[in-house]
Amino acid sequence: MSIVVVGTVAFDSIDTIHGSYHNVLGGSATHFALAASFFTRPQLVSVVGDDFPEDFMETLQSRDLDLDGLEVKKGKTFRWHGRYHADMNQRDTLDTQLGLYGDYSPVLPEAYRQTDCVFLANGLPAMQSAVLDQVESPKLVFLDTMNLWIDTALDDLKAVLKRVDGVVLNDSEAQQLTGLHNTIAAAHKLHDFGPRFVVVKKGEHGALATHDGQTFVLPAFPTDAVIDPTGAGDTFAGGMLGSLVRDGLDQLDFTKLRRAVAYGVVMGSFNVEGVTFTRLMTLTRSEIDHRLREFANIIDIPF
Amino acid sequence: MSIVVVGTVAFDSIDTIHGSYHNVLGGSATHFALAASFFTRPQLVSVVGDDFPEDFMETLQSRDLDLDGLEVKKGKTFRWHGRYHADMNQRDTLDTQLGLYGDYSPVLPEAYRQTDCVFLANGLPAMQSAVLDQVESPKLVFLDTMNLWIDTALDDLKAVLKRVDGVVLNDSEAQQLTGLHNTIAAAHKLHDFGPRFVVVKKGEHGALATHDGQTFVLPAFPTDAVIDPTGAGDTFAGGMLGSLVRDGLDQLDFTKLRRAVAYGVVMGSFNVEGVTFTRLMTLTRSEIDHRLREFANIIDIPF
Repeated sequence: MSIVVVGTVAFDSIDTIHGSYHNVLGGSATHFALAASFFTRPQLVSVVGDDFPEDFMETLQSRDLDLDGLEVKKGKTFRWHGRYHADMNQRDTLDTQLGLYGDYSPVLPEAYRQTDCVFLANGLPAMQSAVLDQVESPKLVFLDTMNLWIDTALDDLKAVLKRVDGVVLNDSEAQQLTGLHNTIAAAHKLHDFGPRFVVVKKGEHGALATHDGQTFVLPAFPTDAVIDPTGAGDTFAGGMLGSLVRDGLDQLDFTKLRRAVAYGVVMGSFNVEGVTFTRLMTLTRSEIDHRLREFANIIDIPF
Repeated sequence: MSIVVVGTVAFDSIDTIHGSYHNVLGGSATHFALAASFFTRPQLVSVVGDDFPEDFMETLQSRDLDLDGLEVKKGKTFRWHGRYHADMNQRDTLDTQLGLYGDYSPVLPEAYRQTDCVFLANGLPAMQSAVLDQVESPKLVFLDTMNLWIDTALDDLKAVLKRVDGVVLNDSEAQQLTGLHNTIAAAHKLHDFGPRFVVVKKGEHGALATHDGQTFVLPAFPTDAVIDPTGAGDTFAGGMLGSLVRDGLDQLDFTKLRRAVAYGVVMGSFNVEGVTFTRLMTLTRSEIDHRLREFANIIDIPF
């Protein structure tokens, strides 16, 4: 089984108090796919320009990714430039250049259309719907979104939310979409929009998931060395959906989702330890499982 | 065994989006003692004026508190007025009237001086030190503090921090005191100030504790109905120290501290469910233990 992920493959420029990194490989689909590749073989759907360097392609090829859905076209690759505050939970976007992604209409390779699992990374809701039109009968579809689409494309967003099984979004987005200030209440309310699984990312404060009236919460894995949070949310989603696919999408229940969210938190914690996804490039599956057990011990309440 | 708590007994006025409550019983020592009373018999040290109503005194007497240390003097009781934002994690203090608390010099009753455990609620660091001068050989002293004292009485604060076993404070205060933006790093750094136990309160995001290089983190107990967070931090501390005292202060280790922090989180979660401490007045010990187990199940990572 695999996961089709549709999102950006990009040049990132990142300013942090620890240093600046310009034109490094980034993008939502990149982060998601690299994280998910520890659990399954992701099928990456995106577009890059003829400015996309060979060594970036080699980085993608160094993990077991299916890149048949990655189009290379004449033009510019998506570029993002952000600056983190001393408080790494705060960042400003300095520049976004959509390039070819601006009028990108994803076309899924024939072999991807029977996929069991789809992750629609943050993107124009109409584009997310157009992707879903191309898949036959996926067992699990998750989408991410952002405040921009809540502000500018709410009807389209509501339409695509009706077509997905799960939504993963930030706490501020959950609150904005529902109009509720309490994150727990907002998460439960989000089910009214369609998804049976709701996952709320809270950055350094962890994540929570709701399903069928049940609630699961986790703090973040505690780390005193946050180098670069860029892509942590997509890395979280990659770990989460990777775990779900590995566990099997039949009889998908809250137990599997809880395990998946925990893997997501763990993958996110590795992501922040290095610039962009550099830490993931040296990561091993045993390190992931070791940290999951360490995490369970850290949050264990001794009776 | 008991706990001596020194702090305010006050009139609170609270504005929230759910309603306004004027001149209700509040105060740091009140919240702490009521929470701790589910675990041990707290000895309350504070001062109130001749404006302090009989029914407030009856409320305090309705729980098993030792009130010999509560002075009633001619003058005004401490008053606080705060307004919560729609996001209940944000509040503004509209007014503080110190009244008799402004030049209060706590004098511990003779019977309190052999106490094993002291909680110095947020207050002037020099006053906190003066309390410690009056206790003989406590096994465990925790203090709370706030940004005001970091700004205006840093030397006194550093002096009293050297004399305590534990500190409990908010994440923003931990960051301010250490100059570190990462809360985990700030918590570990706080041990350099003296305390062997550091507990950081994060409101709706839970709490963390550090000791001897180890880290424990918990999310908040998830609740979708936050009525009034006033006093949640002191209620947390009361549950935490109550649990520590009940477990025994000899061989105090990280396991006992973890259990105590979990009880603190649970007590805080009850506190926010009603105006000021009204929820605590109907609470039973079995409800507390039930919620602790429920909490452990909610955060359990299924392997």
